[in-house]
Amino acid sequence: MVKVQTLKGFRDFLPKEAKKRQYVINTLKTVFESYGFEPLETPALEYEEVLLGKYGEEGDKMMYRFEDLGKRKVALRYDQTVPLARVVAQYQNELPIPFKRYQIQPVWRAENTQKGRFREFLQCDADIVGSSSPLSDAEVIAVATKAVEKLGFKNFKIIINDRANFAGVEPLAIVIIDKLKKIGKEGVLKELAEKGLPTKSLDQILEKWPTENLKEITKVLNDSRVIFDSTLARGLDYYTGLIFEIEIDGYTAGSVCGGGRYDKLIGMFANRDIPAVGFAFGFDRLLEAMDELKLFPDDLQTTKALVTVFFKELKEKSLEVASKLRSNNINIELYLDENSSLEKQLKYADQKGIPYAVIIGPEEAKNNSVTVKNLKTREQKTIPQETLQSELQ
Amino acid sequence: MVKVQTLKGFRDFLPKEAKKRQYVINTLKTVFESYGFEPLETPALEYEEVLLGKYGEEGDKMMYRFEDLGKRKVALRYDQTVPLARVVAQYQNELPIPFKRYQIQPVWRAENTQKGRFREFLQCDADIVGSSSPLSDAEVIAVATKAVEKLGFKNFKIIINDRANFAGVEPLAIVIIDKLKKIGKEGVLKELAEKGLPTKSLDQILEKWPTENLKEITKVLNDSRVIFDSTLARGLDYYTGLIFEIEIDGYTAGSVCGGGRYDKLIGMFANRDIPAVGFAFGFDRLLEAMDELKLFPDDLQTTKALVTVFFKELKEKSLEVASKLRSNNINIELYLDENSSLEKQLKYADQKGIPYAVIIGPEEAKNNSVTVKNLKTREQKTIPQETLQSELQ
Repeated sequence: MVKVQTLKGFRDFLPKEAKKRQYVINTLKTVFESYGFEPLETPALEYEEVLLGKYGEEGDKMMYRFEDLGKRKVALRYDQTVPLARVVAQYQNELPIPFKRYQIQPVWRAENTQKGRFREFLQCDADIVGSSSPLSDAEVIAVATKAVEKLGFKNFKIIINDRANFAGVEPLAIVIIDKLKKIGKEGVLKELAEKGLPTKSLDQILEKWPTENLKEITKVLNDSRVIFDSTLARGLDYYTGLIFEIEIDGYTAGSVCGGGRYDKLIGMFANRDIPAVGFAFGFDRLLEAMDELKLFPDDLQTTKALVTVFFKELKEKSLEVASKLRSNNINIELYLDENSSLEKQLKYADQKGIPYAVIIGPEEAKNNSVTVKNLKTREQKTIPQETLQSELQ
Repeated sequence: MVKVQTLKGFRDFLPKEAKKRQYVINTLKTVFESYGFEPLETPALEYEEVLLGKYGEEGDKMMYRFEDLGKRKVALRYDQTVPLARVVAQYQNELPIPFKRYQIQPVWRAENTQKGRFREFLQCDADIVGSSSPLSDAEVIAVATKAVEKLGFKNFKIIINDRANFAGVEPLAIVIIDKLKKIGKEGVLKELAEKGLPTKSLDQILEKWPTENLKEITKVLNDSRVIFDSTLARGLDYYTGLIFEIEIDGYTAGSVCGGGRYDKLIGMFANRDIPAVGFAFGFDRLLEAMDELKLFPDDLQTTKALVTVFFKELKEKSLEVASKLRSNNINIELYLDENSSLEKQLKYADQKGIPYAVIIGPEEAKNNSVTVKNLKTREQKTIPQETLQSELQ
């Protein structure tokens, strides 16, 4: 007897959730494309050697790896940056430079499951490869900002820093200073002392000013929501210049977007430095923040009305009405069981959140009329068939 | 030294291809939703026991299976029907009945690689679960037909049959008769004789007429492109009533869509019969047919113009022009290297298929004008800045 269950750490998305996901994906794509970013798709599986050793020890451990039937060692996509680096090397004579691509695909990591941590999750990346101009740094921030706006967020901050501000600071001290917002100045000083690190490193960092690079980017951006924070660290091994995060006011689970410049990574397979700057949205966080702030539009339900089937002999009439509305580009569901009670049919419409029901009983059929029921107010009225379309619009 | 390559049997989709894929996916989604079908997403990985034994010996062999870090036996999604059956059983108290869902996700099969056969490919399914009414049979054909029309196909056939027409015919004879179009009547008779099967089974099948069920479905559909073909077989183990395929005139690689009624499958985990009817598009075939018949619109390139940067000191001007156009919802790319020659910038626009370039040199900057170059005709003209927007529209 098979146990009917979703694999541990994985998720099903039933229609209500799936529609929200599509709404966010479509919004991101539209914004990305409005700045000339183009879609890229890479396979779920890669040769293991392409991915292995690129994400540190921790990454190798969390990677889904196995041997395929042809005894090839393969691994499931762990992120979209290493595959991008492979594509950049493999197709270097075909790709326009700068190569501006976005990529929205699931990745797989054998994380310890806990609240908000899943083993399959969507990554939404946009990057510019092959340009070291501060114009590119400004552009990735601009496109991320526009996306956040388009999703409906009103109040948010764009926090920026330059990796250069950490020059000479020990990596472990940086990790501790990065916690400043969480544990406060006292906490940071205490931890630095405990680890035998110079407590003055905190002051050194706090005293830093925007670099020339940041000044240039900020000038190009010309956005008052940009805030310099010398303690913003992110993954320092990776970044070589600008780093930034977007924080939504009132959403406390963390930043919804993060990125920066990483000029030493994308060339890993091409065997030369290739400048790159980009960002990733935290898709699950975006959805959570939108839910909390009630930013999803009401009309994710695209069906306008359920055309019910009063009884078997009248189904042709219902079909005719449904077809006519559909041919006028109104999204219509026809109830698909001519033996169900009207009550059951209306319940179905309620369950799916369909706003109107159209009823054609014997009286209506005789008079070429229809009854329209508003399923929110429960009001109903009988109108001539030819006015139904305008009634629903 | 890592070999830079895509895994055997897998594909990268660079922007040009990826845009075509998105265009088809978006068109399918729009049509599916216009009939009240809703999206469903299931995970890439399932417990092996959920999938194993559901696709015959051949299927088990081609399945990507492995042990995860928690020693769970897992398998990659092989199709979307068995996961749908799991979802129907697992969430039976939450789902509306009938449950009309579509699902567009990749599946993985360790096929022998050959022309048009890949180990990762997109499946596009739409199904109605929980209704045995012929209205549902007609609706799945109607929605598939509408999708084919929306993609731009003008001439195609919808071939239908009823599984009942094969009652009493030996499975092996059915497989041979199914080849009628390929090998002709002579070929079928010869193969039947070779296998020691009664050659009269061909005549038996050819003499069949539409069943009452098919008559009812055809009446509801009322579409002259529907053609009855008693030799259409498809996967008979699976189907229990209607079967259908859509064939595009002039595209010879095979049908682009196939489906039917399968009332004994979806209940496999719920331990009762649950009626279902649906179809799948062959995504790769759809794309190939659209390419051959030149059905992709020219404007998959969404960027209207590249705003070039004449030289470093004038970049603010270019930025200003780009920002203004963008704020008026025109998709604009700004060239991201202020040190590149104009020639290089125009070449970039050509490479990406961007139709216009906007040039702001010292003269233009002084006179508040811009030069617009049509990159197809290579014509250019200098116009006042305030008329640029209407020029591009």
